[in-house]
Amino acid sequence: MSDNRPIGVFDSGVGGLTVAREIMRQIPDESIVYFGDTARVPYGTKSQATILRFVRQIIHFLKTQDVKAIVIACNTASAYALDIVEREIDLPIIGVVKPGARTAVETTKNGRIGVIATDATINSGMYTRYIQSISPDMAVFGRACPLFVPLVEEGMLHDFVTEEIANRYLADLKSQNIDTLILGCTHYPLLRSLIGKCMGPKVQLVNPAYETAVSLRRMLGEKDLLADPIPAGKTPQHRFFVSDGAEKFEIFANSILPYDIRRTRVIDIEGYEE
Amino acid sequence: MSDNRPIGVFDSGVGGLTVAREIMRQIPDESIVYFGDTARVPYGTKSQATILRFVRQIIHFLKTQDVKAIVIACNTASAYALDIVEREIDLPIIGVVKPGARTAVETTKNGRIGVIATDATINSGMYTRYIQSISPDMAVFGRACPLFVPLVEEGMLHDFVTEEIANRYLADLKSQNIDTLILGCTHYPLLRSLIGKCMGPKVQLVNPAYETAVSLRRMLGEKDLLADPIPAGKTPQHRFFVSDGAEKFEIFANSILPYDIRRTRVIDIEGYEE
Repeated sequence: MSDNRPIGVFDSGVGGLTVAREIMRQIPDESIVYFGDTARVPYGTKSQATILRFVRQIIHFLKTQDVKAIVIACNTASAYALDIVEREIDLPIIGVVKPGARTAVETTKNGRIGVIATDATINSGMYTRYIQSISPDMAVFGRACPLFVPLVEEGMLHDFVTEEIANRYLADLKSQNIDTLILGCTHYPLLRSLIGKCMGPKVQLVNPAYETAVSLRRMLGEKDLLADPIPAGKTPQHRFFVSDGAEKFEIFANSILPYDIRRTRVIDIEGYEE
Repeated sequence: MSDNRPIGVFDSGVGGLTVAREIMRQIPDESIVYFGDTARVPYGTKSQATILRFVRQIIHFLKTQDVKAIVIACNTASAYALDIVEREIDLPIIGVVKPGARTAVETTKNGRIGVIATDATINSGMYTRYIQSISPDMAVFGRACPLFVPLVEEGMLHDFVTEEIANRYLADLKSQNIDTLILGCTHYPLLRSLIGKCMGPKVQLVNPAYETAVSLRRMLGEKDLLADPIPAGKTPQHRFFVSDGAEKFEIFANSILPYDIRRTRVIDIEGYEE
């Protein structure tokens, strides 16, 4: 049994491409339909009601593309919307929060886990709730890092300014003696080396993008939904959609994906009813 | 002749409150209906087509509030949409770009003007076009400063990190020997002292928020649209609307407006047709 329909992956913008990249690496036979909500990015400062409305519109759009499963490749949208929308749709759907949380619980030795993310993700308390639902004794320490996304988008990945900001944001977490830190925003893996240097070698960094691709592969296998192997020398047909700024999206995408993409299409996402 | 209907003022979010503040100071008898598009902020990274769609929806909403005039208190929306929408509506409408540009032309002595703004405003070329339409020999030098808005929103108004970023962004402009600098984004007046220190005492800073309130007062006077004087001890009834996050909006508003606001209402701006 196999299923060659694509996987729907979406994010508020370009950040979810770090998840798409992990899927391409770990399950290279699968094709992806990616949607980046670049007209309404960022989600990290918005309310649950607004994010839920956006997520329902995007799921409606992805279903018109005949996807076999959906990945919410955005921590904020996963934290605020996954538990609700998974009861509303008839497709397998996973987010990035639960795989990251599970791995952190398996990784920590002293039971003290840090989470860095957007305001909205931290305020949702979702990482803490999910970690403690697996293991009630875990101590979880959250910290919002609102400047990390604009610093990444300015390309300041190895800059003393970014290091200074990281030192300020992470000082509290360091003093809490955590041994595991979840990079709870899809942009943050691009700051991995700088964050690792700031936290020191005793703190393990957990990348939810990587863990989500692992979970997705397992889930597709269990449900007999894996695609047939692609013939040698071929690559799957991925498709990319955004709600604004296709050219700018492609420049960023081509800087982080394993091959260049072309012909990203702009769609009117507000036209897809909730 | 007088007209006591309110003035509609809108921005992509909280930045336009610096314009509302200037209107409250300069024309204190006028009441304001403010709309902040906090569900879709920021506009500065979006395309003209998207910004135009948003602006038309907002104008539609403001007309339902019976406004007598509209102020586009957002540089990006002014640069991309004013020339088009002013032909479509039957109300006086002004933006922040033209008043700022006019003042810069009157201020400069050496004919060399700098503009700092969002990516979208700089890419639109609107400040350069408008300045040169007034005075073709002016040399205009633009620089996008994408980190300034998030730094302001983090409250880092007097911080060596912000100073370091400002020094990098402004280095090219300094080497161009400009004598006048337009603060072409509504958040930037909050960094006025830091930018002034960086540019030195020979460079005059132009604040379009201030100049827009001057233009608005003159325009209302010419069209017999000024409100009646408010009785001593009273203040006009201002109303505030946002597309998301009323509480967060009020915290920021109350930090910059002359008095506290309450009961900001959230509306579904996507429900207002273009």
